[in-house]
Amino acid sequence: MAITLAIDCMGGDHGPQVTLPATFDFLRKNPSCSAILVGPELVLRAYVTPVEQEFGARISVHNATEVIGMEESIASALRSKKDSSMRVAINLVKEGVAQAAVSAGNTGALMAIARFVLKTLPGIDRPAICTVLPSRRGATYVLDLGANVDCSAEHLLQFGIMGAMLASALEHKERPSVGLLNIGEEDIKGNDIVKRAGELLRQSDLNFFGNVEGNDIFNGTTDVVVCDGFVGNVTLKASEGLAQMISSGLKEEFSRSIFTRLAALIAMPVLKSFRRRFDHRRYNGASLLGLKGIVVKSHGSADRLAFLSALTRAAEAARQQLPIKIAERMAAVSPAPTI
Amino acid sequence: MAITLAIDCMGGDHGPQVTLPATFDFLRKNPSCSAILVGPELVLRAYVTPVEQEFGARISVHNATEVIGMEESIASALRSKKDSSMRVAINLVKEGVAQAAVSAGNTGALMAIARFVLKTLPGIDRPAICTVLPSRRGATYVLDLGANVDCSAEHLLQFGIMGAMLASALEHKERPSVGLLNIGEEDIKGNDIVKRAGELLRQSDLNFFGNVEGNDIFNGTTDVVVCDGFVGNVTLKASEGLAQMISSGLKEEFSRSIFTRLAALIAMPVLKSFRRRFDHRRYNGASLLGLKGIVVKSHGSADRLAFLSALTRAAEAARQQLPIKIAERMAAVSPAPTI
Repeated sequence: MAITLAIDCMGGDHGPQVTLPATFDFLRKNPSCSAILVGPELVLRAYVTPVEQEFGARISVHNATEVIGMEESIASALRSKKDSSMRVAINLVKEGVAQAAVSAGNTGALMAIARFVLKTLPGIDRPAICTVLPSRRGATYVLDLGANVDCSAEHLLQFGIMGAMLASALEHKERPSVGLLNIGEEDIKGNDIVKRAGELLRQSDLNFFGNVEGNDIFNGTTDVVVCDGFVGNVTLKASEGLAQMISSGLKEEFSRSIFTRLAALIAMPVLKSFRRRFDHRRYNGASLLGLKGIVVKSHGSADRLAFLSALTRAAEAARQQLPIKIAERMAAVSPAPTI
Repeated sequence: MAITLAIDCMGGDHGPQVTLPATFDFLRKNPSCSAILVGPELVLRAYVTPVEQEFGARISVHNATEVIGMEESIASALRSKKDSSMRVAINLVKEGVAQAAVSAGNTGALMAIARFVLKTLPGIDRPAICTVLPSRRGATYVLDLGANVDCSAEHLLQFGIMGAMLASALEHKERPSVGLLNIGEEDIKGNDIVKRAGELLRQSDLNFFGNVEGNDIFNGTTDVVVCDGFVGNVTLKASEGLAQMISSGLKEEFSRSIFTRLAALIAMPVLKSFRRRFDHRRYNGASLLGLKGIVVKSHGSADRLAFLSALTRAAEAARQQLPIKIAERMAAVSPAPTI
């Protein structure tokens, strides 16, 4: 299936220096896909000219005169920057010109603009952000990661449905298992909202595993882990912090003396294959779920390989027509109670 | 200062096989301390007889006929096992015979019994569980870890005070910095409870840093990180799961072939010193704070070295008379509003 991605080339810590080479890599790997590069035309042209012949009509530049800063307020991004690269990329999805938008920009602004421009799917009260984390058994999809700090049990059920549809689309699993993040396995654990969410998930037609605990995310106990955005955000960032601490600790130990540096040289192939295994760049690309269109958020600090992962995820979600599948599934769920 | 610890010798996955050798190690390292070993006398005597001469009056056995199972319900532990090793150990603290109790048993039962027997300090609504995690700068004290799933802003303030007093006692810092776990640094982030807790902490005389995010726990941005028990529990367990995944991944990579095994042999001293640096056993021993007495919870799976860490933490908290210090600090705080 031919997919066109709209790429906010200006987002992230590195902007076009990363987003453009990554897009070229993506186009080389996906000969049936096209890319619309969104940003100030003058800036982008310089990058595109050398590859115009290679990609032909598969690549085009769509001018956008404004850029949303990484620290810019949501209100300012939404109200006064109607020609930002981020917004224009999302507009292209809305208009059906592109099947997915990818941005490494400001998460809050991206969610607000995506929600405003694309609107939520019928039956979805609140969009959620879902990322994939490495686990002992492969990958775990975790949501929400910060779009919703206070969630009702019904929201958590909707997250379960959306997460399962995403895992199904990207991992090609028919009935991905869904776990509810809690502080114990027993049904009586947790606060009232989580207990009630457990009931709703049990009654649903999802492949609901039951409660899972923090360690189950990395043990890969279930394909999907559902939690509110506060818990998800803190857990994700704590994991990032721990992984960075371990990685820099390992580096420090191996560069302590001439002997340890020698040991590092000998252990290098092993350390490299270890790093590849848990390389967070391979897991880059969080999905904004529950919208009438596909939007993928790359980590702001993404490098070329990481941004390529985000593009690949966006294309796969588009191939699988994820929003249509979520909408169909939501229509099959009994009408949600008023919240 | 001479400290006597009451040790629940039957708790944890390994019981006396771990708790007793660890206690002997502790007594050797702390010549002014004594230990009361609590458990079935017949079982414990077999371990104690060989070291009776070495420790003399510094070691004694206190009979307790019952044992609380790791999966036993709190209700059963509290109501029908009045002669459990856990309860008797806590009774010894209540009676002033011991200055602290240490157990590797069932956390829920330990908190319930400790709270029932010792009662909470004036001004403390809810006791909290506080553990210490390794960070890039040393150690971070995190609380609550699961005693309280729903917390008010006032509870979070109390956790901040208790955590600061613990960090001050164990790290010998005059004014430990306190961070409020949130999903962004800005004051406007988070749900209403967290925002209000931020206000209370800012108004307090604590060395309040402001909001911190998940990664700050391991970056060591503040000495203390305050959160509700749901978030704390999930974060702690997710971190444990991630650390285990990384550690077993590293092992797997190094044992893949004869070449990687050779590399492991050469890198062994580096890997060992790396492991020592973040060895979770050195951080074992969570404090049950806010009670009229010191109770330290060891991880259930603790080995000899890990249980020794828990004993060492308990003795240090006793030396510093932690409950008295928390009570004094609470008295200095303006009377807490009714919650």
